[in-house]
Formats: sequence, C-alpha cells, structure tokens
Amino acid sequence: MAAADLGHLPVNRRPIGVFDSGIGGLTVARAIATALPHESIYYVGDTKRCPYGVRTQEEVRTFTLQAGSWLVERGVKIIVIACNTATASALKVAQQTFDVPVIGVIAPGARAAVHTTRTRRVGVLATNLTVESGAYTRAIQDLDAGVRVFGCPASVFVDVVEDALASGDRLNQDWFDDRSVFMTPAVRGLARQVTQPLRGQGVDTVVLGCTHFPLLAAPIHEAMGPDVRIVSSAEETTAELIEILRRREQLAGADALARHRFATTSENITSFAVAGSFIFGKPLRSIEHIELGELEELRA
Amino acid sequence: MAAADLGHLPVNRRPIGVFDSGIGGLTVARAIATALPHESIYYVGDTKRCPYGVRTQEEVRTFTLQAGSWLVERGVKIIVIACNTATASALKVAQQTFDVPVIGVIAPGARAAVHTTRTRRVGVLATNLTVESGAYTRAIQDLDAGVRVFGCPASVFVDVVEDALASGDRLNQDWFDDRSVFMTPAVRGLARQVTQPLRGQGVDTVVLGCTHFPLLAAPIHEAMGPDVRIVSSAEETTAELIEILRRREQLAGADALARHRFATTSENITSFAVAGSFIFGKPLRSIEHIELGELEELRA
Repeated sequence: MAAADLGHLPVNRRPIGVFDSGIGGLTVARAIATALPHESIYYVGDTKRCPYGVRTQEEVRTFTLQAGSWLVERGVKIIVIACNTATASALKVAQQTFDVPVIGVIAPGARAAVHTTRTRRVGVLATNLTVESGAYTRAIQDLDAGVRVFGCPASVFVDVVEDALASGDRLNQDWFDDRSVFMTPAVRGLARQVTQPLRGQGVDTVVLGCTHFPLLAAPIHEAMGPDVRIVSSAEETTAELIEILRRREQLAGADALARHRFATTSENITSFAVAGSFIFGKPLRSIEHIELGELEELRA
Repeated sequence: MAAADLGHLPVNRRPIGVFDSGIGGLTVARAIATALPHESIYYVGDTKRCPYGVRTQEEVRTFTLQAGSWLVERGVKIIVIACNTATASALKVAQQTFDVPVIGVIAPGARAAVHTTRTRRVGVLATNLTVESGAYTRAIQDLDAGVRVFGCPASVFVDVVEDALASGDRLNQDWFDDRSVFMTPAVRGLARQVTQPLRGQGVDTVVLGCTHFPLLAAPIHEAMGPDVRIVSSAEETTAELIEILRRREQLAGADALARHRFATTSENITSFAVAGSFIFGKPLRSIEHIELGELEELRA
C-alpha cells in the first residue's frame, strides 16, 4: 500500500502522527485510539534501526527528523514522539524543525508524577540507559524541585515483552485477547525482584518510563503494592495530546471515522503485524513497508 | 483577629495558601474561589514590602520563604505563589523548603500558551522587569522549542489598576460590581498603544503575565482583535491547582463550606479591604494584619 498524503484534509480531520523506534510506541497509539475514537493515527516504527539506545545522539536526531519529515509530508496535524530515547535526544530539534506541534513522552509522565505524589518521592522504571540519562529526574525536578526521584533500571522488562512477542509469526490467541498475559508466576517474581530497590524508599508513585512497560503494569503494580500509584507515560501523553488538540480546536468531530495506518522500516511486515496487533489491542489492518530516506533539507 | 492554625483539620479540609507581594494575586484567589467553591483560601499579601520588582533576588527569596512558612504553620495543604516576580526568583527554593507542594504562575500560563497557539507565535504582556527577565520565554520554549515569544512591557497597566483602586478608602460601587470597569475610552486607547508592538507579528495567543492584568482582559482582548486568544495565568494556575488536588485526592468535598482568610503586612487594613474586595469580586470579610518575622530555620 502506498503512503497516503492526507494534507488536503481539513486540519481537524488529519491524522495524529506517532513515531517510535519500533513497536513499543504502540502502547501510546493504543491509549490515543482508546481515548479518541474519532481520531486517525499514522504510526511509524523504525523497526529496522531499533533499538535507538545503542545509537549516538546525532543518529537518533537524524532518524527522528527523517520520521518526522515523513509524517509531515503525509499531512499529520501533530507528532507524538512515542519513544523515550528519541524524546530525550531529539524533541527540541524536532520542535524547532516542524510547523506542527511535537510532543514527547517524558514531560507528561513527569508532570503526572509530580501531581500525584504525596510523599514527594517518585520512582522511575525505565531502561538502564534512560535511567542513566537522568531525563526523568530533570523533568520532574524542573516542575517541583522538592521531589526526590529514584531511578530503577529495568531493561529486563523490555526483554520479557520482546521475548513474548517474538515467539513466531503468530501469537498465542490467549495472549492476544487477555491483557493480563504477563501475570505469570515468572513475570510476577521478576517484577518483585526488579522493583526491589524502590521499596522501602517511601515512594508512593512510580512512572513507567518506557513505552513497553504499560504491558507490565499489572505485575509492577502488584510488586509495588496497592498504595503505590502507577503513572503510565502512554496515558499521560494522551491527556496532553487531547489538551493541545482541544485548545487548538483541532479535534476530529464525532462524525469522523478513525482510520489507522502503520508503517515499518523493516521488511518483515507479518512479524510487525502480529506483535503490533497484540500491543495495539486490535488487528493492524493497514501496514506498509517504508524507507526513511536521507535528510535533504531542514530548517535550523 | 488572630491567625488560625488549621493543621488539625483533615488534609482535604485545609485551606489553599495563596501568596503575593500585594493585592494583584487576588485575581488568582478569585479564579480559585470561582472554580472551587468548596475550598477555603488563606491569602497573604506582603503589601508593606510591595512591589518586589525593585528588590534583590535574595530579598524576594527571603520574603517568599517567610510568607510560605507562615502559611505552612497555619496548616495549608498547598501553596500558590500568585506573583510573577516571586515565582521567577523563589519557586524552586520554596519547593525545596516546604513539605506541601508549591506552584507558581509562570509555568501554567506558559503551558496554556504553547497548547493554544496555532501560529506558534506567542505574545507575553508583563511588567517591564518580568519581560526583561525572560522567564516566560524560557518557560514557553522549554515546552516547545519551536514557539517564538514576543515580550511586551506593560508596567503601565499596573499603574492603571493601582490608580483606579487608590482613589480613597471607598471604591465607587459601580466599579465594585462591574468587571468591565476598565473599558473606558482612556484605557481602551492605552491598551491599543501598549499592545501595538505585538500586532503584525502573527501572534495568535497573548499571555497575561502579571497578576493585575486579568482585570484588563477586556480592553487587551479588544486591542489585539477577536482572533487572538488571551491566556490568563490566573485561570491556568487554577487549572493546575485543581489537577494536583484531584490527583492527590485532596479536594474539599461538596459538603465543605469555604471560609476565606486574608492577611496583609501593611497596617492599613481598610485600604486592603476596599481594593482587595474589588479585585476578589466579593467583600473580604476576614482580614488580619500580620508581621512576617525573620526566617529562623529552613531546611536546605
């Protein structure tokens, strides 16, 4: 299927562009699709060059601008960078480059955590690289300099999700339908083990600082205990998106039919379809393979 | 009337602390009282040492911590720094000092402007000092590095309001009831003149970056034209406050009776009552004169 240019539509009917290095950002797309049933989404997963965590900052910036340009050419009304690494490295340059608004996943999660915590002690579960970057600590303390942030490296959670989804070109149908798939004894034990450093710190709020982690919200919540609030960057980014579109009067009307499109830079569309449909919570009907070309011209 | 210690109340019944260098912050208190009719407000206006714009940053920090300590001792559940100068200079140190959350007026106004603008060109009307400080430009570009900010010095608007309110110990009752009091030919002409640098810049959103300015929203809006959105920091700070209390489950219930208290460091309570009642939009029934003592002990 050829990429669609939707720039001829009135702005409010244009799709929301969502970009991630791979399939994790589909948790954000899912949250958007659930909260905004009349909005169309155009999703780009740069699966071929995933993960971005091992790339230089310059590479991540280039890749993000390529994906953003691709989405802008398709006529999106706003871009969501649904990837923590790309948000940390490339949000500012993307905002300076494109005419449409660009939001990331870090600030909304940080803001929700600041608003939620009563003990003013917040845990951040993220990949080891995101924790080391200190991006969430900065974002949280920019908003409230009195909040203590406890980073907890949890890259192993990504491995769990990727392993579960890499089990062939077809997922177990039980997994597909049941969001609590990850509540197995092994995952529950792992969640207890990984979150151990956060317990006993007085943390009352934990941010899921990786797009894969909303899939593991149940075992993480169980491990942290019922009194701890789990803040999902996917949900909070969606709330931010709604606020922007509402204020700009660019929400699709109730008469609009959502049409979601998905693009992947890897050639294995079937594998993207199977894992992606699981994460998105619905079959991905329209998937195309794309190449993200070289960056030709970008305004400073 | 003696200052009340309300720390014995359940948290959700405790008042919201609001602090300003003078009476301008009563526009914020008014927005809070209107949006949250069950919440009690404890307002401190440091009228004796007003305006803060001529003080050093160190003085503003000291005064803000004194007022904050006073409010914390009274048992407030949250502090709103309803003063642009104090927000720019002392928000971070206040957040690091007090156990209750502290919010300022700059970030909420900046955020609303970023969400509202379609042209991504935003005007900021503020005192000359606030414009020179660049605080709004930083706050806006932290959120969206692609938004251009046009600062417009408008200290003369403060003079208009102060002059109108300083006409004796009794205000004209017509003013008191009618919010459009400032739509006189003189003020409308002044608003056109002051906002002249913002016109022709493609600005589609203007932030009222001074607590006095919501009183002049009508002539400012008229001067900028119907297509320009006026963002009031007072309203946006209230929205932020609501979100924090909601997330923390600390909103007063629908059965709570609001009881507002006002404290001023100047000895002329009558003058505070007259001007304050005009700005607050209701008679200030409970006013006390207080001294903000020396800072004895503050945690780092």
